[in-house]
Amino acid sequence: MRISVDAMGGDFAPREIVAGSIQAAEKIQGLEKIYLVGNEAAIQSELNKHKGPIPSCIEIVHCTEVVGMGESPATAIRRKKDSSIARSVELVKDGKADAVFSAGNTGAAVAAATLKLRTLKGVSRPAIATVMPTPEKPFVLLDAGANPDSTPEMIQQYAVMGSIYSREILGVENPSVGLLSIGEEDAKGNETTKKTFRLLQETDINFTGNVESRDLYDGKVSVAVCDGFVGNVVLKTSEAVAKMIGNWLKDMFKQNIFRILGYVFARGVFKEMKTHADPSSYGGAPLLGANGIVIIGHGSSNAFATFNGIRVATEAVDHHVNHLIEDELKRINPET
Amino acid sequence: MRISVDAMGGDFAPREIVAGSIQAAEKIQGLEKIYLVGNEAAIQSELNKHKGPIPSCIEIVHCTEVVGMGESPATAIRRKKDSSIARSVELVKDGKADAVFSAGNTGAAVAAATLKLRTLKGVSRPAIATVMPTPEKPFVLLDAGANPDSTPEMIQQYAVMGSIYSREILGVENPSVGLLSIGEEDAKGNETTKKTFRLLQETDINFTGNVESRDLYDGKVSVAVCDGFVGNVVLKTSEAVAKMIGNWLKDMFKQNIFRILGYVFARGVFKEMKTHADPSSYGGAPLLGANGIVIIGHGSSNAFATFNGIRVATEAVDHHVNHLIEDELKRINPET
Repeated sequence: MRISVDAMGGDFAPREIVAGSIQAAEKIQGLEKIYLVGNEAAIQSELNKHKGPIPSCIEIVHCTEVVGMGESPATAIRRKKDSSIARSVELVKDGKADAVFSAGNTGAAVAAATLKLRTLKGVSRPAIATVMPTPEKPFVLLDAGANPDSTPEMIQQYAVMGSIYSREILGVENPSVGLLSIGEEDAKGNETTKKTFRLLQETDINFTGNVESRDLYDGKVSVAVCDGFVGNVVLKTSEAVAKMIGNWLKDMFKQNIFRILGYVFARGVFKEMKTHADPSSYGGAPLLGANGIVIIGHGSSNAFATFNGIRVATEAVDHHVNHLIEDELKRINPET
Repeated sequence: MRISVDAMGGDFAPREIVAGSIQAAEKIQGLEKIYLVGNEAAIQSELNKHKGPIPSCIEIVHCTEVVGMGESPATAIRRKKDSSIARSVELVKDGKADAVFSAGNTGAAVAAATLKLRTLKGVSRPAIATVMPTPEKPFVLLDAGANPDSTPEMIQQYAVMGSIYSREILGVENPSVGLLSIGEEDAKGNETTKKTFRLLQETDINFTGNVESRDLYDGKVSVAVCDGFVGNVVLKTSEAVAKMIGNWLKDMFKQNIFRILGYVFARGVFKEMKTHADPSSYGGAPLLGANGIVIIGHGSSNAFATFNGIRVATEAVDHHVNHLIEDELKRINPET
């Protein structure tokens, strides 16, 4: 197993990305190669900080450019031929790596993957599948932002891909798939969801009907599918509300001595919550449907998130997720 | 000023609705009439529970039917001619009331208002404007669910209506209006937001560009406009995440004696938070664009929410919100 890592992508790159890659190399069985793609000097300097020997499977692949977090993805991928994300994806395209991990500019990763790897047979556009934490068990949300204006046919593909991912990587047996809508009744929603509903009924997955966003966090479904604009709104609204409440609590717990005492006694609560809701445990979102395994990390990925991203990448390869997706989509549309 | 109240609408109707109406009658200046529309015996029984005299402006309007929270709105409004929501709206239509408040089935309220009152000149479809609490100051989100598949022209109307509502009722000077999208750059979003962006630039409001849902809770804009499907998703996701975190905290604070002690010391935090985030302080969401003032309360409205809903209704009448909307829309599209 060989993983290519965009060492320059993310808010804490290359430091955390390199540290997480070393952890992965040390702990994950069967890793033959981790390519750290980026500026050689910067990466080497991070490797030098590591106490102990550098695992032999780590290899630097030098390149000269980086796509910034704020850059326009399409332009960046067109102009920056030697960027770390473009080069990381190329290693997969050229058969030198089995999967790629990047915590950089999400749009650029999607663009690079779509342009260079193309899509699996039967897939119109790759979709970002985000694992969302809840108190009970996580659910998979897709598309989380790759494709605004997704068609019903595309959302049908998301359902198949998300179902397979949930089963193979998260270990959910016969995962329930809900169509994100604004009412539970079959006829509720917009034009896209109404058409998608009928397509999902024809699909050989465990489709459980519409699911409202208010029920997502109650563990009602294992997979929620929707248009990429809508999914991105769910993702960012969730993050925003959680952050707002966190900050609010922090401020309020400082306001007087009783509350500070209360915080001291109960601080385990906040630690536990933070750990549980920490997106880094899930290691990033796979870009499902690309003809190659692509795992996209959160921009704020630390070493732990990078480690998990690489772990998830190896699991996706091990479970032949992409073959399973192609097979299943072929059954739905034999002519493609 | 005469307000018609759907006394049977809401999870705690008629009890809380009647109690809130009495409070409103006692406290709000200039109220000549509150019509309590619904089953006379049920309403009278609630009135009888009140200690002290019943304000003379309260009058029961008997009707025989109720639209349940789970009923299909269109069917219910067509079949149940004598429902409390239909009859409440008719009082406005017939000029007997200046505004209506209902905490019942939202879809039924929207359907009744749209069918019976029609829309203001220049308005394609009425939109639900929800006031969303944040630590700093609330913002207005519309459309929050009346119109899935809103067109760019409709969203332009929402921007004008939301801007006027924010200024007149929430007292925000020159309210900033953001277009909810999935990136801040002008070109980010879906087909609808891209077209809407251009329309909003031509509008004489304080349009500040795209706003991401992650920035909504930082007080970045006073008004956020979007398609009704998307707005409903934002609303329900926000409620779901807040509820999930609340329940999670509650469970975790019970887990050992230290945490219970912590809770005892810090319980003021939770009380304060609950008060601040309590939607009942904002008294419900106006259905902007209907040819009549319609305020829709949350299904869980208690007496305080009902009181505030009636208060907001009187303010909307006082500030001639509907005239201002018609005037402003006429300036944008003189031919309508």
